[in-house]
Amino acid sequence: MSGTLYVIGTGPGSPEQITLEAQAAIAASSHFFGYKPYIERLNLSPDQVAVPSDNREELDRARAALELAAEGNAVAMVSGGDPGVFAMAAAVCEAIDTGEPDWRGIELIIVPGVTAMLATAARIGAPLGNDFCAISLSDNLKPWAIIDKRIRAAAGAGFAIAFYNPISKSRPWQLGKALEILREILPPETVVSIGRGVGVHRGSIGRLALSEVKPETIDMSTCLIIGNALTRVIERPEKPDLVYTPRWVPEHG
Amino acid sequence: MSGTLYVIGTGPGSPEQITLEAQAAIAASSHFFGYKPYIERLNLSPDQVAVPSDNREELDRARAALELAAEGNAVAMVSGGDPGVFAMAAAVCEAIDTGEPDWRGIELIIVPGVTAMLATAARIGAPLGNDFCAISLSDNLKPWAIIDKRIRAAAGAGFAIAFYNPISKSRPWQLGKALEILREILPPETVVSIGRGVGVHRGSIGRLALSEVKPETIDMSTCLIIGNALTRVIERPEKPDLVYTPRWVPEHG
Repeated sequence: MSGTLYVIGTGPGSPEQITLEAQAAIAASSHFFGYKPYIERLNLSPDQVAVPSDNREELDRARAALELAAEGNAVAMVSGGDPGVFAMAAAVCEAIDTGEPDWRGIELIIVPGVTAMLATAARIGAPLGNDFCAISLSDNLKPWAIIDKRIRAAAGAGFAIAFYNPISKSRPWQLGKALEILREILPPETVVSIGRGVGVHRGSIGRLALSEVKPETIDMSTCLIIGNALTRVIERPEKPDLVYTPRWVPEHG
Repeated sequence: MSGTLYVIGTGPGSPEQITLEAQAAIAASSHFFGYKPYIERLNLSPDQVAVPSDNREELDRARAALELAAEGNAVAMVSGGDPGVFAMAAAVCEAIDTGEPDWRGIELIIVPGVTAMLATAARIGAPLGNDFCAISLSDNLKPWAIIDKRIRAAAGAGFAIAFYNPISKSRPWQLGKALEILREILPPETVVSIGRGVGVHRGSIGRLALSEVKPETIDMSTCLIIGNALTRVIERPEKPDLVYTPRWVPEHG
Protein backbone atom coordinates (compact mmCIF):
# COMPACT_ATOMS: atom_id res chain seq x y z
CA MET A 1 0.00 0.00 0.00
CA SER A 2 1.59 3.18 -1.22
CA GLY A 3 0.84 6.69 -0.06
CA THR A 4 1.54 10.18 -1.33
CA LEU A 5 4.47 12.54 -0.89
CA TYR A 6 3.71 16.21 -1.45
CA VAL A 7 6.79 18.40 -1.87
CA ILE A 8 5.33 21.82 -1.20
CA GLY A 9 6.64 25.31 -1.88
CA THR A 10 5.13 27.76 0.59
CA GLY A 11 6.53 30.86 -1.12
CA PRO A 12 8.99 33.40 0.21
CA GLY A 13 7.52 33.66 3.68
CA SER A 14 4.55 36.00 3.76
CA PRO A 15 1.37 33.97 4.33
CA GLU A 16 -0.26 35.77 1.37
CA GLN A 17 2.40 34.59 -1.04
CA ILE A 18 1.32 30.95 -0.83
CA THR A 19 -0.75 29.42 -3.66
CA LEU A 20 -4.18 27.85 -3.26
CA GLU A 21 -2.68 24.56 -4.48
CA ALA A 22 -0.09 24.59 -1.68
CA GLN A 23 -2.80 25.30 0.89
CA ALA A 24 -4.81 22.33 -0.39
CA ALA A 25 -1.75 20.04 -0.28
CA ILE A 26 -1.08 21.07 3.32
CA ALA A 27 -4.70 20.35 4.24
CA ALA A 28 -4.48 16.90 2.61
CA SER A 29 -1.31 15.83 4.50
CA SER A 30 -1.05 14.00 7.79
CA HIS A 31 2.72 14.16 8.46
CA PHE A 32 5.03 17.14 7.92
CA PHE A 33 8.75 17.26 7.31
CA GLY A 34 10.80 20.39 6.87
CA TYR A 35 12.79 23.14 8.47
CA LYS A 36 11.08 23.98 11.77
CA PRO A 37 10.24 27.66 11.07
CA TYR A 38 8.46 26.66 7.84
CA ILE A 39 6.36 24.06 9.68
CA GLU A 40 5.49 26.46 12.48
CA ARG A 41 4.01 28.92 10.01
CA LEU A 42 1.44 26.37 8.84
CA ASN A 43 -0.92 26.34 11.84
CA LEU A 44 -1.38 22.58 11.71
CA SER A 45 -4.52 21.05 13.15
CA PRO A 46 -4.26 18.72 16.19
CA ASP A 47 -4.44 15.57 14.03
CA GLN A 48 -1.57 16.68 11.80
CA VAL A 49 1.90 15.60 12.94
CA ALA A 50 5.10 17.61 12.58
CA VAL A 51 7.96 15.12 12.26
CA PRO A 52 11.06 16.59 13.91
CA SER A 53 14.00 16.58 11.51
CA ASP A 54 16.93 18.01 13.35
CA ASN A 55 19.34 16.47 10.91
CA ARG A 56 20.57 19.02 8.44
CA GLU A 57 21.13 16.35 5.81
CA GLU A 58 18.49 16.74 3.14
CA LEU A 59 18.88 13.26 1.67
CA ASP A 60 18.21 11.62 5.07
CA ARG A 61 15.14 13.78 5.52
CA ALA A 62 13.89 12.82 2.04
CA ARG A 63 14.38 9.12 2.81
CA ALA A 64 12.49 9.38 6.09
CA ALA A 65 9.57 11.08 4.31
CA LEU A 66 9.52 8.45 1.54
CA GLU A 67 9.50 5.62 4.11
CA LEU A 68 6.50 7.11 5.84
CA ALA A 69 4.72 7.64 2.50
CA ALA A 70 5.50 4.05 1.44
CA GLU A 71 3.56 2.90 4.51
CA GLY A 72 0.44 4.55 3.05
CA ASN A 73 0.53 7.99 4.64
CA ALA A 74 -0.04 11.39 3.04
CA VAL A 75 3.26 13.05 3.81
CA ALA A 76 4.26 16.68 3.22
CA MET A 77 7.83 17.87 2.70
CA VAL A 78 7.67 21.62 3.17
CA SER A 79 10.08 24.08 1.54
CA GLY A 80 10.12 27.86 1.64
CA GLY A 81 10.00 29.46 -1.80
CA ASP A 82 9.84 26.89 -4.58
CA PRO A 83 10.85 23.28 -3.83
CA GLY A 84 12.63 22.94 -7.19
CA VAL A 85 15.06 25.84 -6.60
CA PHE A 86 17.89 24.86 -4.26
CA ALA A 87 15.39 23.03 -2.06
CA MET A 88 13.92 19.61 -1.39
CA ALA A 89 12.55 18.40 -4.78
CA ALA A 90 15.99 17.36 -6.11
CA ALA A 91 16.84 15.62 -2.83
CA VAL A 92 13.56 13.68 -2.95
CA CYS A 93 14.22 12.63 -6.57
CA GLU A 94 17.75 11.56 -5.66
CA ALA A 95 16.41 9.52 -2.72
CA ILE A 96 13.92 7.77 -5.04
CA ASP A 97 16.64 7.18 -7.66
CA THR A 98 19.00 5.55 -5.15
CA GLY A 99 16.47 4.08 -2.68
CA GLU A 100 13.98 1.25 -2.25
CA PRO A 101 12.28 0.03 -5.47
CA ASP A 102 8.81 0.45 -3.94
CA TRP A 103 9.42 4.19 -3.46
CA ARG A 104 8.89 4.50 -7.24
CA GLY A 105 5.26 3.57 -6.65
CA ILE A 106 4.63 6.48 -4.28
CA GLU A 107 2.43 9.25 -5.68
CA LEU A 108 4.84 12.20 -5.88
CA ILE A 109 3.20 15.61 -6.16
CA ILE A 110 5.51 18.63 -6.34
CA VAL A 111 3.71 21.92 -5.70
CA PRO A 112 5.60 24.93 -7.07
CA GLY A 113 5.85 28.25 -5.25
CA VAL A 114 7.15 31.80 -5.60
CA THR A 115 10.92 31.52 -5.24
CA ALA A 116 13.00 34.14 -3.37
CA MET A 117 14.49 35.84 -6.42
CA LEU A 118 11.03 36.50 -7.90
CA ALA A 119 9.79 37.98 -4.62
CA THR A 120 12.93 40.10 -4.30
CA ALA A 121 12.66 41.28 -7.90
CA ALA A 122 8.98 42.20 -7.49
CA ARG A 123 9.76 44.34 -4.43
CA ILE A 124 12.24 46.56 -6.29
CA GLY A 125 11.01 46.59 -9.90
CA ALA A 126 12.19 44.17 -12.57
CA PRO A 127 15.91 43.43 -12.15
CA LEU A 128 15.35 40.01 -13.81
CA GLY A 129 13.57 41.65 -16.76
CA ASN A 130 15.87 40.04 -19.34
CA ASP A 131 17.71 36.69 -19.43
CA PHE A 132 18.91 35.65 -15.97
CA CYS A 133 20.56 32.92 -13.91
CA ALA A 134 20.20 31.56 -10.40
CA ILE A 135 23.39 30.39 -8.69
CA SER A 136 23.71 28.92 -5.20
CA LEU A 137 26.94 30.07 -3.57
CA SER A 138 26.96 27.02 -1.29
CA ASP A 139 29.97 24.82 -2.07
CA ASN A 140 28.81 22.05 0.26
CA LEU A 141 27.84 19.83 -2.68
CA LYS A 142 29.78 21.27 -5.61
CA PRO A 143 33.38 22.44 -5.92
CA TRP A 144 34.05 26.16 -5.73
CA ALA A 145 35.74 25.96 -9.15
CA ILE A 146 32.33 25.17 -10.71
CA ILE A 147 30.72 28.15 -9.00
CA ASP A 148 33.61 30.38 -10.13
CA LYS A 149 33.19 29.17 -13.72
CA ARG A 150 29.42 29.72 -13.69
CA ILE A 151 29.67 33.25 -12.29
CA ARG A 152 32.21 34.19 -14.97
CA ALA A 153 30.11 32.65 -17.75
CA ALA A 154 26.89 34.32 -16.61
CA ALA A 155 28.35 37.79 -15.98
CA GLY A 156 30.39 37.67 -19.18
CA ALA A 157 27.32 36.88 -21.28
CA GLY A 158 25.18 39.64 -19.78
CA PHE A 159 22.80 37.58 -17.64
CA ALA A 160 21.34 39.17 -14.53
CA ILE A 161 22.33 36.83 -11.68
CA ALA A 162 20.46 35.90 -8.50
CA PHE A 163 22.64 34.53 -5.71
CA TYR A 164 21.01 32.03 -3.34
CA ASN A 165 22.62 30.89 -0.06
CA PRO A 166 25.06 33.80 -0.22
CA ILE A 167 26.75 33.38 3.16
CA SER A 168 26.59 31.47 6.44
CA LYS A 169 28.73 30.85 9.51
CA SER A 170 30.23 27.77 7.91
CA ARG A 171 30.66 29.47 4.52
CA PRO A 172 32.04 32.91 5.36
CA TRP A 173 34.29 33.72 2.35
CA GLN A 174 32.34 32.58 -0.70
CA LEU A 175 30.28 35.74 -1.22
CA GLY A 176 33.38 37.95 -0.98
CA LYS A 177 35.09 35.81 -3.59
CA ALA A 178 32.01 35.88 -5.83
CA LEU A 179 31.94 39.70 -5.64
CA GLU A 180 35.65 39.81 -6.54
CA ILE A 181 34.97 37.74 -9.66
CA LEU A 182 32.07 39.99 -10.63
CA ARG A 183 34.22 43.12 -10.15
CA GLU A 184 36.76 41.72 -12.60
CA ILE A 185 34.04 41.46 -15.26
CA LEU A 186 31.36 44.08 -14.61
CA PRO A 187 31.63 47.87 -14.20
CA PRO A 188 31.78 49.08 -10.56
CA GLU A 189 28.46 50.91 -10.95
CA THR A 190 26.53 47.71 -11.87
CA VAL A 191 23.28 47.79 -9.90
CA VAL A 192 22.88 45.13 -7.18
CA SER A 193 19.42 44.62 -5.63
CA ILE A 194 19.48 43.24 -2.10
CA GLY A 195 16.41 41.70 -0.47
CA ARG A 196 16.58 40.66 3.19
CA GLY A 197 13.85 38.32 4.42
CA VAL A 198 11.59 39.57 1.63
CA GLY A 199 8.25 37.92 2.21
CA VAL A 200 8.58 37.54 5.97
CA HIS A 201 7.21 40.74 7.52
CA ARG A 202 7.84 42.27 4.07
CA GLY A 203 11.61 42.29 4.89
CA SER A 204 13.78 45.07 3.54
CA ILE A 205 14.90 45.85 0.04
CA GLY A 206 17.55 48.16 -1.33
CA ARG A 207 20.15 48.62 -3.99
CA LEU A 208 23.86 49.33 -4.09
CA ALA A 209 26.55 49.67 -6.72
CA LEU A 210 28.57 46.47 -7.16
CA SER A 211 31.62 48.34 -5.80
CA GLU A 212 29.74 49.10 -2.56
CA VAL A 213 28.44 45.63 -1.55
CA LYS A 214 30.05 44.40 1.68
CA PRO A 215 29.67 40.68 2.49
CA GLU A 216 29.57 41.38 6.25
CA THR A 217 26.24 43.19 5.77
CA ILE A 218 24.63 40.13 4.08
CA ASP A 219 23.11 37.12 5.84
CA MET A 220 21.68 33.74 4.84
CA SER A 221 18.14 35.12 4.42
CA THR A 222 19.33 37.57 1.77
CA CYS A 223 18.84 37.26 -1.98
CA LEU A 224 21.18 39.34 -4.14
CA ILE A 225 20.36 40.15 -7.75
CA ILE A 226 23.29 41.38 -9.82
CA GLY A 227 22.18 43.47 -12.79
CA ASN A 228 23.77 43.49 -16.20
CA ALA A 229 25.41 46.49 -17.90
CA LEU A 230 21.99 47.83 -18.97
CA THR A 231 20.25 47.61 -15.57
CA ARG A 232 18.86 51.01 -14.58
CA VAL A 233 17.72 52.86 -11.46
CA ILE A 234 14.62 55.06 -11.42
CA GLU A 235 14.65 57.65 -8.63
CA ARG A 236 11.23 58.69 -7.36
CA PRO A 237 10.39 61.58 -5.02
CA GLU A 238 9.00 60.23 -1.71
CA LYS A 239 9.10 56.66 -3.01
CA PRO A 240 11.83 54.00 -2.99
CA ASP A 241 14.02 53.70 -6.08
CA LEU A 242 13.05 51.20 -8.73
CA VAL A 243 15.59 48.92 -10.44
CA TYR A 244 14.97 47.24 -13.78
CA THR A 245 16.84 45.38 -16.47
CA PRO A 246 15.44 46.44 -19.85
CA ARG A 247 13.71 43.90 -22.06
CA TRP A 248 15.88 45.03 -24.96
CA VAL A 249 19.55 44.76 -25.79
CA PRO A 250 20.90 47.15 -28.45
CA GLU A 251 22.65 45.82 -31.57
CA HIS A 252 26.30 45.16 -30.67
CA GLY A 253 25.09 45.30 -27.01
CA MET B 1 -4.26 62.71 -7.25
CA SER B 2 -2.30 59.54 -7.85
CA GLY B 3 -3.61 56.01 -7.93
CA THR B 4 -2.14 52.54 -7.81
CA LEU B 5 -0.81 50.22 -10.48
CA TYR B 6 -0.74 46.54 -9.57
CA VAL B 7 1.38 44.38 -11.87
CA ILE B 8 0.03 40.94 -11.08
CA GLY B 9 1.38 37.48 -11.77
CA THR B 10 -1.48 35.00 -11.96
CA GLY B 11 0.73 31.92 -12.14
CA PRO B 12 1.06 29.39 -14.93
CA GLY B 13 -2.64 29.10 -15.68
CA SER B 14 -4.34 26.72 -13.30
CA PRO B 15 -6.65 28.72 -11.01
CA GLU B 16 -5.11 26.92 -8.01
CA GLN B 17 -1.64 28.15 -8.82
CA ILE B 18 -2.46 31.78 -8.03
CA THR B 19 -1.31 33.30 -4.72
CA LEU B 20 -3.62 34.84 -2.11
CA GLU B 21 -1.79 38.14 -2.63
CA ALA B 22 -2.62 38.12 -6.36
CA GLN B 23 -6.27 37.37 -5.60
CA ALA B 24 -6.39 40.33 -3.20
CA ALA B 25 -4.77 42.64 -5.77
CA ILE B 26 -7.33 41.60 -8.37
CA ALA B 27 -10.16 42.28 -5.91
CA ALA B 28 -8.71 45.75 -5.16
CA SER B 29 -8.49 46.83 -8.81
CA SER B 30 -11.07 48.65 -10.90
CA HIS B 31 -9.47 48.52 -14.37
CA PHE B 32 -7.68 45.57 -15.99
CA PHE B 33 -5.06 45.49 -18.71
CA GLY B 34 -3.49 42.40 -20.16
CA TYR B 35 -3.65 39.66 -22.71
CA LYS B 36 -7.32 38.78 -23.19
CA PRO B 37 -7.19 35.09 -22.12
CA TYR B 38 -5.55 36.11 -18.81
CA ILE B 39 -8.29 38.66 -18.13
CA GLU B 40 -11.07 36.23 -19.01
CA ARG B 41 -9.85 33.77 -16.40
CA LEU B 42 -10.39 36.31 -13.62
CA ASN B 43 -14.20 36.28 -13.38
CA LEU B 44 -14.39 40.05 -12.92
CA SER B 45 -17.37 41.56 -11.15
CA PRO B 46 -19.76 43.88 -13.08
CA ASP B 47 -18.11 47.03 -11.68
CA GLN B 48 -14.63 45.95 -12.78
CA VAL B 49 -13.60 47.07 -16.27
CA ALA B 50 -11.46 45.09 -18.71
CA VAL B 51 -9.60 47.61 -20.86
CA PRO B 52 -9.14 46.17 -24.35
CA SER B 53 -5.52 46.24 -25.41
CA ASP B 54 -5.33 44.77 -28.84
CA ASN B 55 -1.98 46.36 -29.48
CA ARG B 56 0.80 43.88 -29.10
CA GLU B 57 3.23 46.58 -28.01
CA GLU B 58 3.90 46.16 -24.32
CA LEU B 59 5.30 49.65 -23.79
CA ASP B 60 2.11 51.27 -25.16
CA ARG B 61 0.00 49.06 -22.91
CA ALA B 62 2.14 50.01 -19.89
CA ARG B 63 1.76 53.71 -20.71
CA ALA B 64 -2.02 53.42 -21.01
CA ALA B 65 -2.19 51.69 -17.62
CA LEU B 66 0.04 54.33 -16.00
CA GLU B 67 -2.12 57.16 -17.42
CA LEU B 68 -5.24 55.63 -15.94
CA ALA B 69 -3.50 55.09 -12.57
CA ALA B 70 -2.23 58.70 -12.60
CA GLU B 71 -5.88 59.81 -12.74
CA GLY B 72 -6.43 58.13 -9.37
CA ASN B 73 -7.63 54.69 -10.36
CA ALA B 74 -6.60 51.28 -9.00
CA VAL B 75 -5.36 49.65 -12.17
CA ALA B 76 -4.26 46.05 -12.68
CA MET B 77 -1.79 44.90 -15.32
CA VAL B 78 -2.23 41.13 -15.48
CA SER B 79 0.51 38.72 -16.56
CA GLY B 80 0.50 34.94 -16.65
CA GLY B 81 3.27 33.36 -14.60
CA ASP B 82 5.45 35.95 -12.87
CA PRO B 83 5.36 39.55 -14.12
CA GLY B 84 9.13 39.93 -13.67
CA VAL B 85 10.06 37.06 -16.01
CA PHE B 86 9.73 38.07 -19.68
CA ALA B 87 6.49 39.84 -18.86
CA MET B 88 5.06 43.25 -18.00
CA ALA B 89 7.06 44.46 -14.95
CA ALA B 90 10.08 45.55 -17.01
CA ALA B 91 7.85 47.27 -19.57
CA VAL B 92 6.07 49.19 -16.79
CA CYS B 93 9.40 50.25 -15.27
CA GLU B 94 10.65 51.37 -18.68
CA ALA B 95 7.45 53.36 -19.23
CA ILE B 96 7.93 55.10 -15.86
CA ASP B 97 11.62 55.74 -16.61
CA THR B 98 10.89 57.39 -19.95
CA GLY B 99 7.41 58.81 -19.28
CA GLU B 100 5.59 61.60 -17.45
CA PRO B 101 7.26 62.84 -14.25
CA ASP B 102 4.04 62.37 -12.24
CA TRP B 103 4.02 58.63 -13.05
CA ARG B 104 6.83 58.34 -10.47
CA GLY B 105 4.26 59.23 -7.81
CA ILE B 106 2.00 56.29 -8.66
CA GLU B 107 1.93 53.51 -6.07
CA LEU B 108 3.50 50.59 -7.95
CA ILE B 109 2.82 47.15 -6.47
CA ILE B 110 4.31 44.17 -8.27
CA VAL B 111 2.80 40.85 -7.18
CA PRO B 112 5.04 37.88 -7.95
CA GLY B 113 3.73 34.54 -9.20
CA VAL B 114 4.81 31.02 -10.11
CA THR B 115 6.64 31.35 -13.41
CA ALA B 116 6.31 28.73 -16.20
CA MET B 117 9.69 27.06 -15.70
CA LEU B 118 8.94 26.37 -12.03
CA ALA B 119 5.54 24.86 -12.87
CA THR B 120 7.10 22.77 -15.65
CA ALA B 121 9.92 21.60 -13.39
CA ALA B 122 7.48 20.65 -10.60
CA ARG B 123 5.44 18.51 -12.99
CA ILE B 124 8.40 16.33 -13.98
CA GLY B 125 10.67 16.28 -10.92
CA ALA B 126 13.52 18.73 -10.37
CA PRO B 127 15.29 19.52 -13.66
CA LEU B 128 16.28 22.94 -12.22
CA GLY B 129 17.74 21.32 -9.08
CA ASN B 130 21.14 22.95 -9.50
CA ASP B 131 22.23 26.32 -10.96
CA PHE B 132 20.05 27.35 -13.90
CA CYS B 133 19.27 30.09 -16.42
CA ALA B 134 16.17 31.43 -18.10
CA ILE B 135 16.56 32.62 -21.69
CA SER B 136 13.87 34.08 -23.94
CA LEU B 137 14.37 32.95 -27.52
CA SER B 138 12.49 36.00 -28.81
CA ASP B 139 14.80 38.24 -30.81
CA ASN B 140 12.20 40.98 -31.20
CA LEU B 141 14.05 43.21 -28.71
CA LYS B 142 17.57 41.79 -28.65
CA PRO B 143 19.89 40.68 -31.44
CA TRP B 144 20.15 36.96 -32.10
CA ALA B 145 23.92 37.21 -31.56
CA ILE B 146 23.26 37.95 -27.86
CA ILE B 147 20.96 34.94 -27.53
CA ASP B 148 23.57 32.75 -29.27
CA LYS B 149 26.26 33.98 -26.87
CA ARG B 150 24.09 33.39 -23.79
CA ILE B 151 23.12 29.84 -24.82
CA ARG B 152 26.78 28.96 -25.39
CA ALA B 153 27.86 30.49 -22.08
CA ALA B 154 25.11 28.77 -20.09
CA ALA B 155 25.46 25.31 -21.65
CA GLY B 156 29.25 25.47 -21.51
CA ALA B 157 29.22 26.24 -17.79
CA GLY B 158 26.78 23.45 -16.90
CA PHE B 159 23.66 25.47 -16.16
CA ALA B 160 20.28 23.86 -16.72
CA ILE B 161 18.49 26.18 -19.16
CA ALA B 162 14.81 27.08 -19.42
CA PHE B 163 13.72 28.46 -22.79
CA TYR B 164 10.83 30.92 -22.79
CA ASN B 165 9.03 32.07 -25.98
CA PRO B 166 10.58 29.19 -27.91
CA ILE B 167 8.77 29.60 -31.22
CA SER B 168 5.95 31.50 -32.94
CA LYS B 169 4.64 32.13 -36.44
CA SER B 170 6.78 35.24 -36.75
CA ARG B 171 9.85 33.57 -35.20
CA PRO B 172 9.95 30.13 -36.83
CA TRP B 173 13.72 29.37 -36.96
CA GLN B 174 15.10 30.49 -33.60
CA LEU B 175 14.39 27.31 -31.63
CA GLY B 176 15.99 25.14 -34.32
CA LYS B 177 19.07 27.32 -34.24
CA ALA B 178 19.17 27.21 -30.42
CA LEU B 179 19.01 23.40 -30.51
CA GLU B 180 21.86 23.35 -33.06
CA ILE B 181 24.02 25.40 -30.70
CA LEU B 182 23.19 23.12 -27.78
CA ARG B 183 24.04 20.02 -29.84
CA GLU B 184 27.50 21.48 -30.51
CA ILE B 185 28.15 21.71 -26.78
CA LEU B 186 26.11 19.05 -24.96
CA PRO B 187 25.95 15.27 -25.45
CA PRO B 188 23.06 14.02 -27.64
CA GLU B 189 21.51 12.16 -24.67
CA THR B 190 21.14 15.35 -22.57
CA VAL B 191 17.66 15.24 -21.02
CA VAL B 192 15.18 17.89 -22.21
CA SER B 193 11.93 18.35 -20.25
CA ILE B 194 9.04 19.69 -22.31
CA GLY B 195 5.94 21.20 -20.69
CA ARG B 196 3.02 22.21 -22.89
CA GLY B 197 0.44 24.53 -21.34
CA VAL B 198 1.46 23.28 -17.91
CA GLY B 199 -0.91 24.90 -15.47
CA VAL B 200 -3.84 25.27 -17.87
CA HIS B 201 -5.84 22.05 -17.65
CA ARG B 202 -2.63 20.55 -16.22
CA GLY B 203 -1.17 20.55 -19.77
CA SER B 204 1.18 17.79 -20.81
CA ILE B 205 4.71 17.01 -19.77
CA GLY B 206 7.36 14.75 -21.18
CA ARG B 207 11.04 14.33 -21.81
CA LEU B 208 13.25 13.67 -24.81
CA ALA B 209 16.93 13.37 -25.52
CA LEU B 210 18.43 16.59 -26.93
CA SER B 211 19.05 14.75 -30.22
CA GLU B 212 15.31 13.95 -30.51
CA VAL B 213 13.73 17.40 -29.99
CA LYS B 214 11.97 18.64 -33.15
CA PRO B 215 11.06 22.35 -33.29
CA GLU B 216 7.92 21.63 -35.33
CA THR B 217 6.43 19.79 -32.33
CA ILE B 218 6.88 22.82 -30.04
CA ASP B 219 4.54 25.81 -29.77
CA MET B 220 4.50 29.19 -28.00
CA SER B 221 2.86 27.78 -24.86
CA THR B 222 5.73 25.32 -24.34
CA CYS B 223 8.52 25.67 -21.81
CA LEU B 224 11.66 23.64 -22.52
CA ILE B 225 14.17 22.83 -19.81
CA ILE B 226 17.54 21.63 -21.03
CA GLY B 227 19.37 19.57 -18.43
CA ASN B 228 23.09 19.57 -17.81
CA ALA B 229 25.44 16.61 -18.21
CA LEU B 230 24.40 15.23 -14.80
CA THR B 231 20.61 15.41 -15.31
CA ARG B 232 19.04 11.99 -14.74
CA VAL B 233 15.84 10.12 -15.60
CA ILE B 234 14.06 7.86 -13.08
CA GLU B 235 11.82 5.27 -14.71
CA ARG B 236 8.85 4.18 -12.62
CA PRO B 237 6.48 1.29 -13.30
CA GLU B 238 2.96 2.60 -14.00
CA LYS B 239 4.03 6.19 -13.34
CA PRO B 240 5.54 8.85 -15.59
CA ASP B 241 9.32 9.19 -15.61
CA LEU B 242 10.92 11.71 -13.29
CA VAL B 243 13.75 14.02 -14.39
CA TYR B 244 16.12 15.71 -11.97
CA THR B 245 19.39 17.60 -11.97
CA PRO B 246 21.38 16.55 -8.90
CA ARG B 247 22.18 19.09 -6.21
CA TRP B 248 25.82 18.00 -6.34
CA VAL B 249 28.59 18.32 -8.88
CA PRO B 250 31.57 15.97 -8.50
CA GLU B 251 35.11 17.32 -8.14
CA HIS B 252 36.46 18.04 -11.66
CA GLY B 253 32.76 17.85 -12.73
